[in-house]
Amino acid sequence: MTNRAVGLADLPLRPELVGEEPYGAPQLDVPVCLNVNENPYAPSDRVRAEIAEGAARAAGGMNRYPDREATALRTRLAAYLGHGLRLENIWAANGSNEVMTHLLQAFGGPDRSLLTFAPTYSMYPEYARNTHTRYLTEPREADFTIDPARAVAAIEQHRPDVVVITTPNNPTGTATGFDVLRPILDAAPGIVVVDEAYQEFVQPGVPSALELLPDHPRLVVSRTMSKAFAFAGGRLGYLAAGEAVVDACRIVRLPYHLSAVTQAVACVALDNADEMMAHVAELRAGRDDMVDWLTAQGLPVVPTSANFVLFGAFADRHAVWAGLLSDGVLIRETGPAGMLRVSVGTPEEMAAFKTSLRRILDEENTDR
Amino acid sequence: MTNRAVGLADLPLRPELVGEEPYGAPQLDVPVCLNVNENPYAPSDRVRAEIAEGAARAAGGMNRYPDREATALRTRLAAYLGHGLRLENIWAANGSNEVMTHLLQAFGGPDRSLLTFAPTYSMYPEYARNTHTRYLTEPREADFTIDPARAVAAIEQHRPDVVVITTPNNPTGTATGFDVLRPILDAAPGIVVVDEAYQEFVQPGVPSALELLPDHPRLVVSRTMSKAFAFAGGRLGYLAAGEAVVDACRIVRLPYHLSAVTQAVACVALDNADEMMAHVAELRAGRDDMVDWLTAQGLPVVPTSANFVLFGAFADRHAVWAGLLSDGVLIRETGPAGMLRVSVGTPEEMAAFKTSLRRILDEENTDR
Repeated sequence: MTNRAVGLADLPLRPELVGEEPYGAPQLDVPVCLNVNENPYAPSDRVRAEIAEGAARAAGGMNRYPDREATALRTRLAAYLGHGLRLENIWAANGSNEVMTHLLQAFGGPDRSLLTFAPTYSMYPEYARNTHTRYLTEPREADFTIDPARAVAAIEQHRPDVVVITTPNNPTGTATGFDVLRPILDAAPGIVVVDEAYQEFVQPGVPSALELLPDHPRLVVSRTMSKAFAFAGGRLGYLAAGEAVVDACRIVRLPYHLSAVTQAVACVALDNADEMMAHVAELRAGRDDMVDWLTAQGLPVVPTSANFVLFGAFADRHAVWAGLLSDGVLIRETGPAGMLRVSVGTPEEMAAFKTSLRRILDEENTDR
Repeated sequence: MTNRAVGLADLPLRPELVGEEPYGAPQLDVPVCLNVNENPYAPSDRVRAEIAEGAARAAGGMNRYPDREATALRTRLAAYLGHGLRLENIWAANGSNEVMTHLLQAFGGPDRSLLTFAPTYSMYPEYARNTHTRYLTEPREADFTIDPARAVAAIEQHRPDVVVITTPNNPTGTATGFDVLRPILDAAPGIVVVDEAYQEFVQPGVPSALELLPDHPRLVVSRTMSKAFAFAGGRLGYLAAGEAVVDACRIVRLPYHLSAVTQAVACVALDNADEMMAHVAELRAGRDDMVDWLTAQGLPVVPTSANFVLFGAFADRHAVWAGLLSDGVLIRETGPAGMLRVSVGTPEEMAAFKTSLRRILDEENTDR
């Protein structure tokens, strides 16, 4: 190939994309990865073997298109969620990215808007941009909670077509209770998406918005197998909602969006749900330990219901991030100014993080 | 779940989607499936075992996000295509559906248009609809070829942002040569996508638009592993283009769009390309035989460079389609009025098709 001289500036790229960079945290090959909120525990050898068997079965028909409705997979996802949900209440796609894209293709788009509460997950503006949905944010309170009265006022002001509430919120870890969700559901004129990507990690007593589904036909609860389920490499996001929401997703989805292997392998993981999630309680305890430890170092920490902790505040957070990286520990430079986010890893990974951060704090390189 | 009474009409679906149905050919469980142009030959036991090994390796890191750049996979795709292509010239996604969506997100969208030549692949309007791109068609000639002068005139009239040329065309099987592609490339003000999904099946002497890439930085050649490659269940579409086009796709793609298992399994298939495509020559011969046989039955047949044949013309094509189905043979009711499309299958599948069609013709149920 020649054409090396032709750059992106020479192509008729959409104007709003000019100068944009591909999204994503750095993918660096370091010993301790605590940057993208993965579950640090790989599937057991037994589950790996079952996954191989599932892939081999799928490969037996690999020349044929997969089940367009992903019936076996959606049936298992419904059973996993419980709450009386059935196949018809579940939609699944290649990660929550695609689930959210389907929702915005159906209910967002040109001349429509999405409202969410910042700081929150940094992918939402990308979903909005890709679907030409206007992206609106309302600030959270100083403690990163959502005030229901202010949320309702914002909804009444903007009349958004889609409201997104992330609970536990990323990158703050903040859970949002029914006292906030209920008035938002009552006020919202359109679809309300409650993104529960980290729901399996919540503190005791935090309920799931799944409980609200029977009474709220415009409510969508988004979930993923990437976090507690230890299945980030499998790329399986899903939602639970009334059947009509699923029907809307079925209209905009392009056919055969979930490969035969994705469906087969995710079914195996769901059939082994207990084992895939065997470490969740341990990760919750590790999260609480991390909060305690960071607090004991004199650092402000945001209360968290997720498998990560947002802490700070550093005058030069990049220096702290880079100092950790020089010790082989990768965390995430994200969220409000001066803050850093660390995922909960194995005890060994957290020990490495603590050792490195203590060194950095002791060296007072951080200008705090 | 309750909410059974809430229907799609009660939700704020985008107006252009109201009344739309999910796209897709019927997925029926019949003995002879000749309806979606699949390769009828499943991977060998040896390749299946390698696919299982690849999936098991991927499962070992399933708790981690996959390689966002799909480097190993794109490197293999470049090697498969040859023509001096490198990793940087290749983009891959979950089927050509997603590849085309990325292209239209980058170069189409609101206030932009796509021009193609009808009759052609029935998914293009869906890609356009999902990305809010205006969909324009110019009719092909009576023999389903594209007249270069008329194509250039249409391009000069509409100034489309994206032109799509499907060669071999679906559902007609018509190949488009450089005598047509070159003037279109010269006239088109934006991106030109040559969709070569069926390129491995072309008649001798039909070149690939890959040869034109070095001199045409706005040319994109789209390919898939779903057809000749016998990998429809794996959902792997890709494109070859100048690096800047790939950079544009990287901006709009959502991160981790290709799962670790998809990447691993597609790599295995590519490492066994000769075996995966071992039946292509046989399928080409079967295609030519099918054309001869249909012609011998007195039926008009469209010359084809693909693994399917468009034939007709029936006063009541649905009756013929249903008659075949009653014999367990599923073909596709698609394309111009009165025509039917049959995929090339195994010798046994084609024998079943011929027996059934001959019966229907003899019974003169068809009102021809």
